Amino acid sequence: MFLNKRITIKTACIFYMLFFSISIFAQQPADFVNPFIGTSNYGATFPGPIAPRGMASISPFNVAGKQNKLEKDSQWLSNPYVNENTFLTGFSQVNISGVGCPELGVLILMPTTGAVETNHLKYGSAYRNEVAKAAYYSVDIDKYNVKAEFTASKRVGVSKFTFPKGQSNILLNLGLGLTNEEGAMVKVVSSTEIEGMRSVGSFCYNSPEDAYPVYFVAKFSKPADKFGVWKKPSKYEGTEAQWMTYNGKTRMMDNTIKTVVGDSIGTYFTYKFNKQETVEVKIGISYVSIENARENLEKETGNKSFEAVYKDTYNEWNEELSKILVEGGSGDDKTIFYTALYHTLIHPNTLNDYNGEYPVIKRTKIAKTEDTRYTTFSLWDTYRNMHPLTSLVYPKQQSDMIKSMLEMYDENGWLPKWELNSTETFTMVGDPASIVIVDACLKGIQDFDIYKAYYAMLKGADQIENNPLRPGLKEYIEKGYLSTNYRGPVSTTQEYNTSDYAISLLAKALGKKDDYNRFTKRSLSYRKLYDSDLKLLRPRTANGKWYEPFDPVSGANFEENVGFIEGNAWQYAFMVPHDIKGLIKLMGGEKEFSDQLQKVFDIKQFDMANEPDIANPYLFNYVKGDEWKAQEMVKKLVKEYFQNKPKGLPGNDDTGTMSAWLVYSMMGIYPISPGDPIYTITTPMFDKITIKLDPKYYKKENIVIEKEINTDGKINSIELNGKTLNSFFISHEDFVNGKTLKVIQN
Amino acid sequence: MFLNKRITIKTACIFYMLFFSISIFAQQPADFVNPFIGTSNYGATFPGPIAPRGMASISPFNVAGKQNKLEKDSQWLSNPYVNENTFLTGFSQVNISGVGCPELGVLILMPTTGAVETNHLKYGSAYRNEVAKAAYYSVDIDKYNVKAEFTASKRVGVSKFTFPKGQSNILLNLGLGLTNEEGAMVKVVSSTEIEGMRSVGSFCYNSPEDAYPVYFVAKFSKPADKFGVWKKPSKYEGTEAQWMTYNGKTRMMDNTIKTVVGDSIGTYFTYKFNKQETVEVKIGISYVSIENARENLEKETGNKSFEAVYKDTYNEWNEELSKILVEGGSGDDKTIFYTALYHTLIHPNTLNDYNGEYPVIKRTKIAKTEDTRYTTFSLWDTYRNMHPLTSLVYPKQQSDMIKSMLEMYDENGWLPKWELNSTETFTMVGDPASIVIVDACLKGIQDFDIYKAYYAMLKGADQIENNPLRPGLKEYIEKGYLSTNYRGPVSTTQEYNTSDYAISLLAKALGKKDDYNRFTKRSLSYRKLYDSDLKLLRPRTANGKWYEPFDPVSGANFEENVGFIEGNAWQYAFMVPHDIKGLIKLMGGEKEFSDQLQKVFDIKQFDMANEPDIANPYLFNYVKGDEWKAQEMVKKLVKEYFQNKPKGLPGNDDTGTMSAWLVYSMMGIYPISPGDPIYTITTPMFDKITIKLDPKYYKKENIVIEKEINTDGKINSIELNGKTLNSFFISHEDFVNGKTLKVIQN
Repeated sequence: MFLNKRITIKTACIFYMLFFSISIFAQQPADFVNPFIGTSNYGATFPGPIAPRGMASISPFNVAGKQNKLEKDSQWLSNPYVNENTFLTGFSQVNISGVGCPELGVLILMPTTGAVETNHLKYGSAYRNEVAKAAYYSVDIDKYNVKAEFTASKRVGVSKFTFPKGQSNILLNLGLGLTNEEGAMVKVVSSTEIEGMRSVGSFCYNSPEDAYPVYFVAKFSKPADKFGVWKKPSKYEGTEAQWMTYNGKTRMMDNTIKTVVGDSIGTYFTYKFNKQETVEVKIGISYVSIENARENLEKETGNKSFEAVYKDTYNEWNEELSKILVEGGSGDDKTIFYTALYHTLIHPNTLNDYNGEYPVIKRTKIAKTEDTRYTTFSLWDTYRNMHPLTSLVYPKQQSDMIKSMLEMYDENGWLPKWELNSTETFTMVGDPASIVIVDACLKGIQDFDIYKAYYAMLKGADQIENNPLRPGLKEYIEKGYLSTNYRGPVSTTQEYNTSDYAISLLAKALGKKDDYNRFTKRSLSYRKLYDSDLKLLRPRTANGKWYEPFDPVSGANFEENVGFIEGNAWQYAFMVPHDIKGLIKLMGGEKEFSDQLQKVFDIKQFDMANEPDIANPYLFNYVKGDEWKAQEMVKKLVKEYFQNKPKGLPGNDDTGTMSAWLVYSMMGIYPISPGDPIYTITTPMFDKITIKLDPKYYKKENIVIEKEINTDGKINSIELNGKTLNSFFISHEDFVNGKTLKVIQN
Repeated sequence: MFLNKRITIKTACIFYMLFFSISIFAQQPADFVNPFIGTSNYGATFPGPIAPRGMASISPFNVAGKQNKLEKDSQWLSNPYVNENTFLTGFSQVNISGVGCPELGVLILMPTTGAVETNHLKYGSAYRNEVAKAAYYSVDIDKYNVKAEFTASKRVGVSKFTFPKGQSNILLNLGLGLTNEEGAMVKVVSSTEIEGMRSVGSFCYNSPEDAYPVYFVAKFSKPADKFGVWKKPSKYEGTEAQWMTYNGKTRMMDNTIKTVVGDSIGTYFTYKFNKQETVEVKIGISYVSIENARENLEKETGNKSFEAVYKDTYNEWNEELSKILVEGGSGDDKTIFYTALYHTLIHPNTLNDYNGEYPVIKRTKIAKTEDTRYTTFSLWDTYRNMHPLTSLVYPKQQSDMIKSMLEMYDENGWLPKWELNSTETFTMVGDPASIVIVDACLKGIQDFDIYKAYYAMLKGADQIENNPLRPGLKEYIEKGYLSTNYRGPVSTTQEYNTSDYAISLLAKALGKKDDYNRFTKRSLSYRKLYDSDLKLLRPRTANGKWYEPFDPVSGANFEENVGFIEGNAWQYAFMVPHDIKGLIKLMGGEKEFSDQLQKVFDIKQFDMANEPDIANPYLFNYVKGDEWKAQEMVKKLVKEYFQNKPKGLPGNDDTGTMSAWLVYSMMGIYPISPGDPIYTITTPMFDKITIKLDPKYYKKENIVIEKEINTDGKINSIELNGKTLNSFFISHEDFVNGKTLKVIQN
């Protein structure tokens, strides 16, 4: 009996460990992360592991091959993984999350068994049992009966393959990739090591001359019994092709340590196992050199096991995510919240190597930083809420991001617009860097060279000729708007206005009165595009006439149209966050404004999936008495578009912008006018939200948002430290210096 | 008057220096070298500088572009330079001399002026004032008014460009090349340095999987005002091509230090000169790594000026060429002689880096040597006379070559057949390595592992299955010949016979009586292919019947034919050098033999341009009384085919084989039966020839060949140290231990 009892206890323990460990210990914020959210419905996130703001990441790559519903070459597809797809061709080691153009998705590792096959369309496989968590992803590969597990440190992807008995292979395909660039170089250093590079770049089909290398070193935990490089050369077309019996055929180069270059090359590491065995592969990444990739690998993961790397990165995630603690709400609420926060912590990401080195813009030299050099600045998206969120919760990161932007100014002569891995891609329109910097600065992040930043902004705002940030600036300054001679002239005018407003705020803070007046005036020039008949903004031609014919609905769903970028007149109608009061006046008063705003939703022109109108729901707060509409609309949109499902993002995450919208919306506050240190308030979706504040930047240890009565009713009053606020707006200063913001519902 | 006198003296001095320096000082052997010899008539030599057995070499590259009479892509063309061509597209930094397949001819440097143009068909130019000497080449480039000068050390090419005032550019084109391989990698390290690699290989369309990198580092004497990399990417064909406005267009990447890979890439270094200026470019080469290329450059040419490098390499050449001193003869005689000797000192060439490292066959690892690792073993050609010449005059080099061959055996399991830069290309037929080794060994070069060499030979001669050296070996052993099931069965049988004879000689020397008997017997099996009706060798089918229809003339001029490789029945009729006495018997006696031999010439089937029959003229020496025919024929052939002109070689130099034939022929001796340490004698073409002997291998300091009466008459008698020889043959031992070989004419 005693014996039996012992066994029972032991069994119970195992049972407990196996089945309850998740639920028992899953109270940590990191445990709520579901990396599958956004992997469908063009969310463009990936489910594989990455460290917070990591350089390396691993994604299952299932967008090659006609078996897949969404195939990378058959349409515009910007992600390495699509949840509905079924045919897996490996695991890419560098990836971008939530963008709208195909890029990176290269260095594709794949375990196979049997004879070496180098054509991914042949070696690809169905798969099952996907598991994705913060810092971990695993999957079973049907064709080979191989279990594949992945984790990552900041600059190193770690893969662990469990192979059955027999011949096993680990392929590193340097041809296949999501990027449209081609070209790679590889050298097998030994039976446990590979080094090389892969060309990537021309993001969104811009700046092809700046296409750049990602360098790597791969180390294997077990020496291969055989290794080699394959190369499928391009077909020779000349006279001599007749003597080249091998023309265009894949070459298998066994056990060679020579350097091989080509557009379609890869390596195979082959094992003969007498029993089930595991092999771990660590792949260090660098944008500087192979040597740095090797050092990154050694310093970050040198002697660490897969489990140790996973644990450390999990802990990093947990620490970052714990900066905001939520109480109340359902498990799904916490999951979408923490997953969104997780998605805001992917980009901007680390560019510099472990030793601090990074390539400057245009790659004219290698520089070195003591802090973090950040990259992947999708500023047209992120200025709206992602950077304001970072300023609030991760101000040191925001500070380093601004320092990175100023470095880019030093290197390139211009603040960034859409920077990716030290390439200025000039994607999208506007001059959003100014807004990001001013927003942070006015929120108290000031440990950077503010004057340099100010003059960098002025350069972008004032230099008429050869200004890559603000095309059409001359016309904008002269007329107040861009005419239809330029791309998306109304949108661009609005963006310039918003930037100019941010600059005016900093000018004011710096006592630059003339600049303040000048930029304040400039920031309102969108009004010249206001068509009072339509109550919409509308493009004008170069001679000042309204552009005809004009269809305000044209331009939805990313359709090209004259006047607007990625949107139409309805979607852009309210995108003057700094002058909503002016817009109210233009529209003829609060009621007309509120009606027109409501109409955007009623006629289904509101686009939750893109940035121009994402602040719209909050604009009802500008109309006394209509604030409940903001509360209801935000609640409705969260429910409709954000879910604990792969399709639980409304479209491209836009490097965390959609996710930041959700994080703010669930906390009940929103940075309604980027640049302006102010939040507007709706109903929090948790009972209590505690934001830990960084003592280096903020006086208080934390700020708590509480919801007093958890009903579906409207907000009755809002209290800061027990004192009722007399509006639905609160300054950043009041907020972070408060203790408790209490939202009291009916 | 005094003053005037002084001026006169001074003027005279300048005059003397300018115009007489060449003739006054040009008494050195190196001064007689005319590198233009062989640059026309498919000689396939190049006129640019190379050090003795150098790894690096520079050749003007004028075989691209339709302006050229002979264009590399419009026909089979195996050389980077053709004397008749007129359109120059640069200067290649690694080249092969005198081979029959296009290879290397890459890393093409080109000076231009004005705006940077990267298309060689556009930046190419006419040129004039070519000067070529040992270790030096210069040319004026019409289009740019640039003087280009070149020299080289063993592993480094040195270029010196004199630019006019204005914008000047130095392009390094890594796309253009003579090789059929593609793919390169490049990284500009700084405004004075470039590093990278270029893929080359699949020589003669063999072993494509062994295509390999040539690594390089280029250093510029002046920092560029601007530099960059260009890349012409392949054209993208997918759906996304519609968004790629830059699709397939050349990208100019200014001032970047990133690594760029591609099939069509290059670098530009640009200068703005206020006056005429010179820039020197040193390009170090390595087949191991970029680091080694850099070390080669630093150690060989680090601080040396162009002039210093030239002087050192010139001196090296002079020292090597001075191993044979000739007296008498015309200037042209000396020129064709020393140029031929120069051509025998190009290949085999050095493979190892300055630090001794080199890639092993198949590039599975890097090995290290204390001596020299040689490469470029065109053995089917060179076993006949080039290696025998090297054994006589440069025995240390020959010893290192044998050691290199034995290393290849260790690395690859087989002695080399046609090895190029650690790639076994398996070009041509036969098993010639054995002959080379035995020949050297029996001449007294024995400082290598003779037993290992012996067993390596036996492996090639005896392993029936999977024998890459001797296809058809089973049939050969069983029947004594290859049937028409195999390629060139008669030729191949003859080659195997010759190799077997060499092995039998070594077996005898080693006291291996059984092997001696076995291989002696095998060496005579060609006799089964003797058709006594035709008095020619003739192919047999697998069932032993003569192959029908049979045209003995078919196969001339490299025409494909059944039976023979690169020749026909007439050209191969006498290629049994080890059994001429047997052949005489087969043919029915000396007269019949002599008549048939004479017929080869009379019916114009003798081919001076290829190897199978090049010993033919000397075979008259086997017929008592007909030796004068050998003397006349050799003299006639030298006069007809070897001249101080670009077309002064009878065809491909075959890595020095044609040149070695000339060197021997002009010295009046010929290694008539390779493997057998014996020479046959004709009339020397100089009054006195002094061959310095290497004291490490030979007892005497030198051996002198003298011609006593310089008429055009027949040889009357031959004396060794005053003692009359009773034949036209002399053993190597007698020769090198003699003091004077005097050939006395009528």
